[in-house]
Amino acid sequence: MAPDDSVPEAIPDRHENATGEISALPPEEASKVAAEIRAIAEARGEDSEVVELVEMSASASVPGARTRRSSIIPPMTSVTGELVPVEDHDEELSVDELRDAWPLLDLEERSDGLRVLPREDAEDFFVALSPADQAALLLHFRAGQRRQWMRLLEPDDVADVIQRVTEEHRATLLALLDAPTRKEVTALMAYEEDEAGGLMSTRYARLRPQMTADEAISYLRRQARDKIETIYYAYVLDTEQRLLGVVSFRDLFAADPKKIVAEIMETDVVRVTDEMDQETVSRYFAEHDLTVVPVVDKDGKMKGIVTVDDIVDVVQEEATEDAQKFGGMEALDMPYLMSSRAQMVRKRGRWLTILLVGEMLTATALGFFEDALIPTLALFLPLIISSGGNSGSQASTLVIRAMALGEVRAADWWLVLRREVAIGVALGAILGGFASVRVMIWGAVGTYGEHFLLIGLTVALAVTGCVLWGTLAGAMLPFLLRKLGADPANASAPLVATLVDVSGIIIYFTIAKLILTGTLL
Amino acid sequence: MAPDDSVPEAIPDRHENATGEISALPPEEASKVAAEIRAIAEARGEDSEVVELVEMSASASVPGARTRRSSIIPPMTSVTGELVPVEDHDEELSVDELRDAWPLLDLEERSDGLRVLPREDAEDFFVALSPADQAALLLHFRAGQRRQWMRLLEPDDVADVIQRVTEEHRATLLALLDAPTRKEVTALMAYEEDEAGGLMSTRYARLRPQMTADEAISYLRRQARDKIETIYYAYVLDTEQRLLGVVSFRDLFAADPKKIVAEIMETDVVRVTDEMDQETVSRYFAEHDLTVVPVVDKDGKMKGIVTVDDIVDVVQEEATEDAQKFGGMEALDMPYLMSSRAQMVRKRGRWLTILLVGEMLTATALGFFEDALIPTLALFLPLIISSGGNSGSQASTLVIRAMALGEVRAADWWLVLRREVAIGVALGAILGGFASVRVMIWGAVGTYGEHFLLIGLTVALAVTGCVLWGTLAGAMLPFLLRKLGADPANASAPLVATLVDVSGIIIYFTIAKLILTGTLL
Repeated sequence: MAPDDSVPEAIPDRHENATGEISALPPEEASKVAAEIRAIAEARGEDSEVVELVEMSASASVPGARTRRSSIIPPMTSVTGELVPVEDHDEELSVDELRDAWPLLDLEERSDGLRVLPREDAEDFFVALSPADQAALLLHFRAGQRRQWMRLLEPDDVADVIQRVTEEHRATLLALLDAPTRKEVTALMAYEEDEAGGLMSTRYARLRPQMTADEAISYLRRQARDKIETIYYAYVLDTEQRLLGVVSFRDLFAADPKKIVAEIMETDVVRVTDEMDQETVSRYFAEHDLTVVPVVDKDGKMKGIVTVDDIVDVVQEEATEDAQKFGGMEALDMPYLMSSRAQMVRKRGRWLTILLVGEMLTATALGFFEDALIPTLALFLPLIISSGGNSGSQASTLVIRAMALGEVRAADWWLVLRREVAIGVALGAILGGFASVRVMIWGAVGTYGEHFLLIGLTVALAVTGCVLWGTLAGAMLPFLLRKLGADPANASAPLVATLVDVSGIIIYFTIAKLILTGTLL
Repeated sequence: MAPDDSVPEAIPDRHENATGEISALPPEEASKVAAEIRAIAEARGEDSEVVELVEMSASASVPGARTRRSSIIPPMTSVTGELVPVEDHDEELSVDELRDAWPLLDLEERSDGLRVLPREDAEDFFVALSPADQAALLLHFRAGQRRQWMRLLEPDDVADVIQRVTEEHRATLLALLDAPTRKEVTALMAYEEDEAGGLMSTRYARLRPQMTADEAISYLRRQARDKIETIYYAYVLDTEQRLLGVVSFRDLFAADPKKIVAEIMETDVVRVTDEMDQETVSRYFAEHDLTVVPVVDKDGKMKGIVTVDDIVDVVQEEATEDAQKFGGMEALDMPYLMSSRAQMVRKRGRWLTILLVGEMLTATALGFFEDALIPTLALFLPLIISSGGNSGSQASTLVIRAMALGEVRAADWWLVLRREVAIGVALGAILGGFASVRVMIWGAVGTYGEHFLLIGLTVALAVTGCVLWGTLAGAMLPFLLRKLGADPANASAPLVATLVDVSGIIIYFTIAKLILTGTLL
């Protein structure tokens, strides 16, 4: 989502309590909106969740909450400086109320909500929505309304929206654009959404190397009137559109007016290519503390810029995907409350079924040891295999996250393995010690019969073995997945646990047979 | 880390291959550096990991990699426009090489590395380091060198650094600052590192409401020469330092030169308070697509600004902490390869021990059902309890992540519970069905004796019960933790699995006793 950088921080009608936290709405106002939304919801006759949500917000609101409108200077001017009437919004739906209720509203209600908002608020709100929401709304709007909403979006956002709709609707939406924008959008659509080309804006400020600082400032002033993303960094291009350097507005401003741009610009520019993966782009931002980066194609021709505010979204999105994969499911790709129950069952059920099938191997493995599966040993089975799963979960989360941050690369597997062997042995010894103490104490009072010391030894060794094995499996699985071209984040806690369960059974009963044959077995 | 916004994207000596990906160094150059670092490492006589890492990088490098220096215009001018000699860096350590090896270097080597780098590169590199690294280096430097390095840092970064050192060293470092900076830093140190006040920069551009656009531009031009974070948004303050509005440089630039600032500024400004938690601040950025936000105290007085590039770090940091907690360990607070093995064992061992003690309850629970713990039932024990753990892990990761993104609030627990009951029943039925099929097939060939149908029914019901219970426990535990004032991310996959293991045993054997008493039991 590209912000309109002329007034990014201006969202009217923000309600705050005394500490500045966004609170729920003042009670009297909230109950009005509750009624308003309830009227819509009841007309629809089913979704009682909407009403509940609003009622909860109302009851949770802080006494003494005040609105920003009680601030020192009344909002008498719009950003363009024209006098605008101070409206009384008390009877209206506010942006915050709509944002709070949004996940629970259907398309009809969302579209109504936007209509009810003051025009400017509605536009800001629409621009900040996800591409999926924007796409759904655009198709829902009447044909006559579509154009005006579509025109609010920057070309890169339009490209994202169009990639969300079916082939047949694409032409409809593209037809709403003017010819130059349509050309830009079509070019952007050639990129995957998760590569630099799919993130970039094509509307950046450009300069020629031979301009003087003075000429450059006037030229930027003209460009500032267009819808360009930022005038604060201008890119210096040759006649072939190749990137020669970058100049900050601030430096231009501070420079001798007669000096030429080629002398002011910085030529050693960190740049990314249009096909670079968005995770790599976000690592560049982190490593170099960038606020904006130019995107070039493989011939060095300038294609666009990626700004840091888009990177925040990328980072959140990637972290959410990784977290969900690590939790043992497919990435949801939408907010939790917005997904339908059927989608949830599908996205979660698939992995659970795969894991269950994997876990069925535990029954098979136990089948091989049926003669050793005496109650005294079965007692400790969950304890032993789970210690391996837990240590595996730790190791894999560490490696996955370090990979995502670029701290650990594929070639570092050997380094990681060596560390984890040492750590696994230490952790295994500690946990094995604790586990055997448990067996000894219960055993000393006679619970496990005369051979309790041997049982204690068996359990201690099995825990040590499982923890070491779990640690190594958890640490190496992300490397293996990456090698196979899969996302390392799929080395989820449940997957590692399942792998370790099966091998943990083999470890446990093999040790048991070695130690206990002739006594208990 | 506050970027020096005059040249944030200028990091010299970046090596790129043809696709623009940062590659390893050209082989011949890398082996020189390997030798260089090896010389240091061998002098130290132990850390062979350093050498290995560099050799791996060298062997992984892409043929035909080229350096940026072969670009169209040679870097003949520095950012200030002064002519600087084009140095031949072939014999030198490059920034990338140092960055790659950094995690494995000790303090002495790091300090040497900075000395070996060209001055400007070393400064950029130092500024981009973590506060912990900066603190360690500053204390390591000779007293005569400290001041020049310290002066590179913005006040907010200095405050972070000082908060990392012991009480006795604080005075030493503070003494290096000039009086006004020292005052600023001391004020910033009153804030926690993870609240808005701890993130903010105090060096923002300010204007008075009665200035004309023209006067404002000249005034900003003067301020631009100081080390202020950005001139692109200027904050309009009254004589009491209260925030009246914001004006973008771009609007000022486009406005009638005679118009006064009060008429141009936007008065409805999204703001945060100085004590607001950094996670909340990052949500404001996401919700409003901000690039910068003003920070005010509880009286509405302006204190500083937070820029979006700091928010990227916050988002990464919070995601990493949450991921590590969810994986079942304490947050590491440092890169994986930089933590010592002893720290790892401590941070991971503590939780593993707690989980092991919890898991010991499974042995206790199984003890109550010892008469039912016949081999035929023990066979399916891991399968059944792990299905509950896996579904619990999914549910908790979804809820934790949705909470972190602000999609789900504490008050939504009832909404989530209702959804998860429906989803848990559906998932439970599906998995129970699959599990019983497995028992039926093996049973049909005689593996489980004559009562295999009853065993199949028992397993199916137990899986259904465990999946439903696991789903609900996983979904509700984050809410419970938040209610208790703990981080919801502690509802880790291993913790949920452990909880569900114990209750899963009770569910399984209770169902078994109900169905199988009189036949198998």
